[in-house]
Amino acid sequence: MKAQHVAIVGATGAVGQEMLRVLADRRFAMASLRLIASPGSAGRTVRFAERDYVLMAPSREAFEGVDLALFSAGASVSRAWAPVAAACGAWVVDNSSAYRQDPEIPLVVPEVNAEALANNPRRIIANPNCSTIQMLVALAPMHRAWGLERVVVSTYQAISGKGARALDEFDAQVRADGRGESPAHEILPGILSGNLLCDWAHGDDGWSEEERKMVAETRKILSMPSLAVSPTTVRVPVRNGHSESVWARFARPVTRAMAHEVLGAAEGVVLTRESGPGVHPQPRTASGQDAVFVGRVREDGGDPNALMFFVVSDNVRKGAALNAVQIAERVCL
Amino acid sequence: MKAQHVAIVGATGAVGQEMLRVLADRRFAMASLRLIASPGSAGRTVRFAERDYVLMAPSREAFEGVDLALFSAGASVSRAWAPVAAACGAWVVDNSSAYRQDPEIPLVVPEVNAEALANNPRRIIANPNCSTIQMLVALAPMHRAWGLERVVVSTYQAISGKGARALDEFDAQVRADGRGESPAHEILPGILSGNLLCDWAHGDDGWSEEERKMVAETRKILSMPSLAVSPTTVRVPVRNGHSESVWARFARPVTRAMAHEVLGAAEGVVLTRESGPGVHPQPRTASGQDAVFVGRVREDGGDPNALMFFVVSDNVRKGAALNAVQIAERVCL
Repeated sequence: MKAQHVAIVGATGAVGQEMLRVLADRRFAMASLRLIASPGSAGRTVRFAERDYVLMAPSREAFEGVDLALFSAGASVSRAWAPVAAACGAWVVDNSSAYRQDPEIPLVVPEVNAEALANNPRRIIANPNCSTIQMLVALAPMHRAWGLERVVVSTYQAISGKGARALDEFDAQVRADGRGESPAHEILPGILSGNLLCDWAHGDDGWSEEERKMVAETRKILSMPSLAVSPTTVRVPVRNGHSESVWARFARPVTRAMAHEVLGAAEGVVLTRESGPGVHPQPRTASGQDAVFVGRVREDGGDPNALMFFVVSDNVRKGAALNAVQIAERVCL
Repeated sequence: MKAQHVAIVGATGAVGQEMLRVLADRRFAMASLRLIASPGSAGRTVRFAERDYVLMAPSREAFEGVDLALFSAGASVSRAWAPVAAACGAWVVDNSSAYRQDPEIPLVVPEVNAEALANNPRRIIANPNCSTIQMLVALAPMHRAWGLERVVVSTYQAISGKGARALDEFDAQVRADGRGESPAHEILPGILSGNLLCDWAHGDDGWSEEERKMVAETRKILSMPSLAVSPTTVRVPVRNGHSESVWARFARPVTRAMAHEVLGAAEGVVLTRESGPGVHPQPRTASGQDAVFVGRVREDGGDPNALMFFVVSDNVRKGAALNAVQIAERVCL
């Protein structure tokens, strides 16, 4: 790969900042770096890798000469500027939901469906939702081995996925609880300290947006347009690292030993084979790591074709920034 | 019901204390009250309802003349003393796991299988595990309406279920995190502050004891010895109130409206029909309440016979003390 001219759109956000760390950690060959933020932040100076960068507002000029543009500034910014960056000749990897269900845009988890990158005339690749990415890194190798038929998943999602202001509000809630005062809320739709919240937008049928994404994205990435996926998404009082309890049914009988063999060899997966109190993947230890951690693999007991497992990963890293950079590594030549 | 001579075994524990509160709240007619604790605590004085009680050690004499003995002091105490209390003529309601799988002992959730109390020559009734009770108060009316075929459940269990010392340790962990120090652990098998733990004992097959209980107790209470139940149990950083994400399949097609109708009329259930960010049952608001709170009822999308829902209840109250007293109200005449 030749050294790339890189732009990060949404450079001051949590995912934008993590993208900078991931590019540095992986020694991504950069010829230049432009940090793009909202017009309100433009002109401000930020420091990265011992260099100062002046934040730029998005514009046609800002994308000229760029080889790779990593977007993480929300769907409306992506809809407005990703086509401009692509028209300037950049590869765009978009972390928003703007293009995920566009049939002409690949939606990619590199360990799962890198082949979808091959045909991409629009030069835009969509990065999936964090909850979908970690579930599929674990499920895809088992699907390849035995044929996935049905998934029931319950999430335990961290606050970092809701952004820095939600984290600050949560910390204030914990401090209020510690003082015996009543916690307040403004960003979150309620108290998350010592509590659980389903804080996503809802449809009239009771489904949350996050649950819909998990269904639609799983179907697109696995090219199984009618796969049965039944998710329940829940925010838990954990700062970083999403966890998921997954029940999956396959086309043929499976055992714990078979799953350990497949998962032990799976790209991007770190498997905990042992079992015992506290011996399993956990958000505190997965936070800051690249891998998708899988453990508590169990046979169903009733259905010989079904398995249960617990999967934990850093939702800001593999769930967003790392996955985007892994895509970039495959498209930038 | 005539006024009863009552004994509480394990009176100083969290469930024992809650039993005292529930008896008072429900104006349970008591002719006398004996508080029984470990021999180490015997002789100590405790105050309840503006009266002082001297703690007694368990003995044959302690149970003489007792009409109702509520046990919550662990399985070994129940195995040693519940038959003695019953032989003295008392009805025993046992909150431990000692007798739950004994085929001669009824295992009862009053809203679900009160009829099992009818034939009970041994005068001992087992109180189910907290996670099972709240799931079945919600599932049983739907089972009666449409015939339950399969359950997949993931739990979000509160720390109070692990006892007062675990709660104290958790609070210390939260304080250590607040000071930027590394939290310690001794009672818990790891850090639960800002984390998730599966802290139960495990079998070689990876299943936790709690998961096994949910399967065996659900089958016994519903008289469905081969019902497919697939649980994953997880401890979350919540002080009190268990939550469960349930996926259930029935023998015939079901809709959200049908579920709302059945659950809205179900004994012991408080249903949230509305849906939106933060609009659902939550452990903080369920804590201290008698009801089993059900919400987020959704159709499956793929399987017309399946529903998903979220169920929250106070695990110390309905999950233990209240259920035991409700049983007592039905057997004491």
